[in-house]
Amino acid sequence: MADTVWPGCAKSLKGVVLDMCGVLYDSGEGDGVAIPGSIEAVKKLKASDLQLRFCTNETQATREKFVAKLQRLGFDISVSEVFSPAPAALAVLKERGLRPHLLVYDGVLPEFDSVDKTNPNCVVVGDAAENFSYQNLNEAFRVLIGLEKPVLFSLGQGRYYKETDGLKLDVGVYMKALEYACDLQAEVIGKPSPMFFQSVLSDMGLQPHEALMIGDDLVNDVGGAQHCGMKGVQVRTGKYRPSDERHPTVAADGTVDNLAQAVDVILSQRGH
Amino acid sequence: MADTVWPGCAKSLKGVVLDMCGVLYDSGEGDGVAIPGSIEAVKKLKASDLQLRFCTNETQATREKFVAKLQRLGFDISVSEVFSPAPAALAVLKERGLRPHLLVYDGVLPEFDSVDKTNPNCVVVGDAAENFSYQNLNEAFRVLIGLEKPVLFSLGQGRYYKETDGLKLDVGVYMKALEYACDLQAEVIGKPSPMFFQSVLSDMGLQPHEALMIGDDLVNDVGGAQHCGMKGVQVRTGKYRPSDERHPTVAADGTVDNLAQAVDVILSQRGH
Repeated sequence: MADTVWPGCAKSLKGVVLDMCGVLYDSGEGDGVAIPGSIEAVKKLKASDLQLRFCTNETQATREKFVAKLQRLGFDISVSEVFSPAPAALAVLKERGLRPHLLVYDGVLPEFDSVDKTNPNCVVVGDAAENFSYQNLNEAFRVLIGLEKPVLFSLGQGRYYKETDGLKLDVGVYMKALEYACDLQAEVIGKPSPMFFQSVLSDMGLQPHEALMIGDDLVNDVGGAQHCGMKGVQVRTGKYRPSDERHPTVAADGTVDNLAQAVDVILSQRGH
Repeated sequence: MADTVWPGCAKSLKGVVLDMCGVLYDSGEGDGVAIPGSIEAVKKLKASDLQLRFCTNETQATREKFVAKLQRLGFDISVSEVFSPAPAALAVLKERGLRPHLLVYDGVLPEFDSVDKTNPNCVVVGDAAENFSYQNLNEAFRVLIGLEKPVLFSLGQGRYYKETDGLKLDVGVYMKALEYACDLQAEVIGKPSPMFFQSVLSDMGLQPHEALMIGDDLVNDVGGAQHCGMKGVQVRTGKYRPSDERHPTVAADGTVDNLAQAVDVILSQRGH
């Protein structure tokens, strides 16, 4: 509830990290739709003395196209404020000299333009949606099973997300499928990987206890942030389900109806 | 190796259970191809004093069509000798009054003609191959996530099988995908479920120690049979991989080049 522990920490906060899909907007046909009050809530945070970053596991578009979509919806967001898994994966591939076989959504392919993809020695799986055909999953499987040391990167590990026409299976489901098929464990890039949250904190120059994550995904947003020492608040929008509030292992520091309510509570605690 | 422990048990055997795909034949275009020596090996077993049953996790066709295919390839097999998951699942559904949403191969649909499928309260997943589209998997997921007590039946839990044009993902991979998506555990019908092996033993009227399973799948054929107290021998055909002989948890009672060699060893031990 919004009236329990977490507002107490609002006074000492120096930064807020927002999940995007399910917090700012619901995806779906076209650009999707902004969640009521969220455009104004982002404006209020930007006008405050808090640092603000956006952290998404969105892997269906390049960061540029994704941010352009949010701008069309009315959000005041720039590319440099947004952290997403594909650029992080690219950095890891280059650092380790790996050549990926990509099982991703067509829209995110340009993020990987600069990496050699011939004779692949690893697989990168993202939220490929309709590209998760039997044939494509089988092709990724054959690449992995043919490697002496198969390496699988997963851009997130979400179970499902909500679009305007209903729940959709997310990348984690296909990560688990390939893990089982090849008897291996994927390396997750994106939330809830601690490395991913750490890169956002570093960018803000903050310690974990100085930052609050607000998301609709209890495990990947809230639990992931808490695992790093951040506070985590869940919104009752997006993929939120009432059973989240009785989850056996993850308990949010607070649960609020939506982003607008979260921001109002934070700013009123800080005397705005 | 064929010269270790298991031939010693051949003298006391009363029955042999054969896996089909990868032991009798390799599937692929059309009917697939018989594995050299296997048609003759089945003949030899039928001419012996051993009981013989066939046990498959094949779920792409009705048992009738599947057996007809084997007969066309030259095998002396009848429907009553073959155990497969779909009829077993049908029995469970009827016993528990469940109405399935089916995510299976078109060819096996007739097995479920007699069960009510309106307003489904469980999901049955089989080796649906090309039917494992994103849309179809998402549809099965939505049925499960919408149930108060989601029930998922999986017709087998194999990771992959071999067709003439390469390895193909099997039903277990999609079972794991749905298990993760819905945070549940599937009920497996078919190998390696002990209930499934037990039904074959009952049909032969034999105790587990009197029967030997021969298969190409170390975990589901060999391990499953051993778990029931049967002996399990692996053939180096079908999905066999050399690393199977160094598996951390399952060790076959014997490993032979193919079914023909297995049958020759058994029958020579028995003084035929």
